[in-house]
Amino acid sequence: MASYAERAARNLVLVREKCPLIHNITNYVVMHYTANALLALGASPVMAHAVEEMEEMASLADALVLNIGTLSTPWVEGMLVAGRTASRRKIPIILDPVGAGATTLRTSTAVRLLDECRVTVLRGNASEVLAVAKGAGGTRGVDAAHKVEDAVEAARDWARARGVVVAITGAVDHVTDGGAVRRVHNGHPLMGRITGSGCTATTAIGAFCAVNADAVEATASALAFYGLAGEYAARAGNLPGTFAVGLIDMLQAVTPDQVVRDARIEGEG
Amino acid sequence: MASYAERAARNLVLVREKCPLIHNITNYVVMHYTANALLALGASPVMAHAVEEMEEMASLADALVLNIGTLSTPWVEGMLVAGRTASRRKIPIILDPVGAGATTLRTSTAVRLLDECRVTVLRGNASEVLAVAKGAGGTRGVDAAHKVEDAVEAARDWARARGVVVAITGAVDHVTDGGAVRRVHNGHPLMGRITGSGCTATTAIGAFCAVNADAVEATASALAFYGLAGEYAARAGNLPGTFAVGLIDMLQAVTPDQVVRDARIEGEG
Amino acid sequence: MASYAERAARNLVLVREKCPLIHNITNYVVMHYTANALLALGASPVMAHAVEEMEEMASLADALVLNIGTLSTPWVEGMLVAGRTASRRKIPIILDPVGAGATTLRTSTAVRLLDECRVTVLRGNASEVLAVAKGAGGTRGVDAAHKVEDAVEAARDWARARGVVVAITGAVDHVTDGGAVRRVHNGHPLMGRITGSGCTATTAIGAFCAVNADAVEATASALAFYGLAGEYAARAGNLPGTFAVGLIDMLQAVTPDQVVRDARIEGEG
Repeated sequence: MASYAERAARNLVLVREKCPLIHNITNYVVMHYTANALLALGASPVMAHAVEEMEEMASLADALVLNIGTLSTPWVEGMLVAGRTASRRKIPIILDPVGAGATTLRTSTAVRLLDECRVTVLRGNASEVLAVAKGAGGTRGVDAAHKVEDAVEAARDWARARGVVVAITGAVDHVTDGGAVRRVHNGHPLMGRITGSGCTATTAIGAFCAVNADAVEATASALAFYGLAGEYAARAGNLPGTFAVGLIDMLQAVTPDQVVRDARIEGEG
Repeated sequence: MASYAERAARNLVLVREKCPLIHNITNYVVMHYTANALLALGASPVMAHAVEEMEEMASLADALVLNIGTLSTPWVEGMLVAGRTASRRKIPIILDPVGAGATTLRTSTAVRLLDECRVTVLRGNASEVLAVAKGAGGTRGVDAAHKVEDAVEAARDWARARGVVVAITGAVDHVTDGGAVRRVHNGHPLMGRITGSGCTATTAIGAFCAVNADAVEATASALAFYGLAGEYAARAGNLPGTFAVGLIDMLQAVTPDQVVRDARIEGEG
Repeated sequence: MASYAERAARNLVLVREKCPLIHNITNYVVMHYTANALLALGASPVMAHAVEEMEEMASLADALVLNIGTLSTPWVEGMLVAGRTASRRKIPIILDPVGAGATTLRTSTAVRLLDECRVTVLRGNASEVLAVAKGAGGTRGVDAAHKVEDAVEAARDWARARGVVVAITGAVDHVTDGGAVRRVHNGHPLMGRITGSGCTATTAIGAFCAVNADAVEATASALAFYGLAGEYAARAGNLPGTFAVGLIDMLQAVTPDQVVRDARIEGEG
């Protein structure tokens, strides 16, 4: 049986072969960066949010990414229509609850999207996932205030109860559907020094879930590949402007062979 | 009589001398990149969309660029007021129908802008131009699903009937007003690996049309110059992050002499 | 008594130690760049604008930055609620009146924000500051049409009357509260060749004001540090794409010792 790293490499090959169309309703801050990241890693991005075109656009996509980073009411309506369309079509929906716990609007929107759409993967930092899963507050903006470890157990129970794969990213990324668990050890501290690093991880998960229906494996593969690209980018430059450019470069340059060799995924189930 | 390349070089000199103010109502994804591109090539960008200030802002501009990439109803209203103001003032209007054919909102908005404003140049990929010109559907997101060649004939008839210059960009760019035709052979495949490459071409066309009333010549000049900047940027780096940075660099660095030497424009009429 | 440069260095150390959370309601063009700039210099950015979450978000922040670059009515409402919350909490509010004077919407919004919120620092180019302070028109888009020197005297009177620190940035930056004056000689012409250079200065002021209640000193410190980062970035590359990346790098790399040595601030009062 193939190792986790071998499966991650295979999923990367699938993304690059199939070039899935990823529909993003995401925040203004990261739109340009995440679109370039998707192109670099081999997928095709579309950004669109108007409620009038959400059913048509979500009908063309291979996955839907919902990111609540710069939320407003008209965008929530667009997310709901796109999310319901994607649910009917059974394409993967990835939810990034940016800043959940910081404001009522964010927490309640994340909860509502989970209630009304068939979300496949919830990806956040420990604070955000706890806020969504437990109604816990205390998020400080979009920072990771809680320890990843503190959130893992709560996430596991919640994932099982809700049938949603949860990915808590941090120094080590934890992926679970309540039964299976994957821990991804790839990544680099510089990723926390550029904006949209987590949002880019989320859209990468969308690309991998679009080509592999095993959402735990697809999510762990995406996070290992993305973390690896960050490690390689950090070798070329340890200042954040240069690193942000190098990360896009590496999303295109990292090969499946490098993933087999350097992906560090372990787990059970 | 000057060659096409010599005229392109002269138009570049004019842009840099006159520094035209280009009013962009464009999509969220490319705003930052296209603003930097305009500054680099020698023009002055302004981004504004609120209907309340559209008449005043479009009255200050030397050209108006309308791009429907992340459309919503309030933005369409802003585009219409700006477009009508620009029409009255007889400044060039450049329309980029991003994703036309993919959704009804996009196709109908592009058609409406063409009906209610005096659009000077329509710039899109083959799918988008066909969708606008023929009501053809089948666009897959913002990708170029049709061959450029298939769209050229339809565009020629439509351009003549409507009095609009059409630019279909791809491996070879085709520019026509229904009579004259220019084919631009500059460019590099890496331009398709970064987001907003087409949108940046559109805003470059705006800058060149602002300084030269011959819209066929101005459009071909802009596309040759922009493609040339892409060729030069690709020499410095063939990965997309580095390339995107280098393209901005080259928009400033490419000289009129280089345009005379390396612009590859042919045509008739 | 410490020199101005020594105080600027000390303020930089404070920013990096305290990592203040800066709430930005800013324009679409610069969101990504300014978020990265804040992270690079050592602060923590959050971008949020929806009126529904403005009270909660502004309650978490250490400073609020209001930037009217791509204004629309719902955003003005968000700015007002955030501004009133920040006023009650007595955290610094920094206002960047992008394009004031160019359109009625911009000028009147800037004036309204000044009337209804306790603005700490107003940062603009000479045209914008004059438009706000004197109701003068004639701004050409977001360019600096007036000489900085012409605006300094008007700003001084207005600053004193309103109790607002005014920063007029240009080849030399002038900071005044009506009594004290600081002139900052750091910076590089390339900063005017990238979009959002002024907006980034504004958000840097937000970070420095968040850690030092002396707004004249904090503003001059931020502008000297930011200008110095630009000078260093220009040594590494004089083309705008490379420069924009290098500026983010230098916001992280510039040390307090370099600020002591190279900050060029003079003044009186």
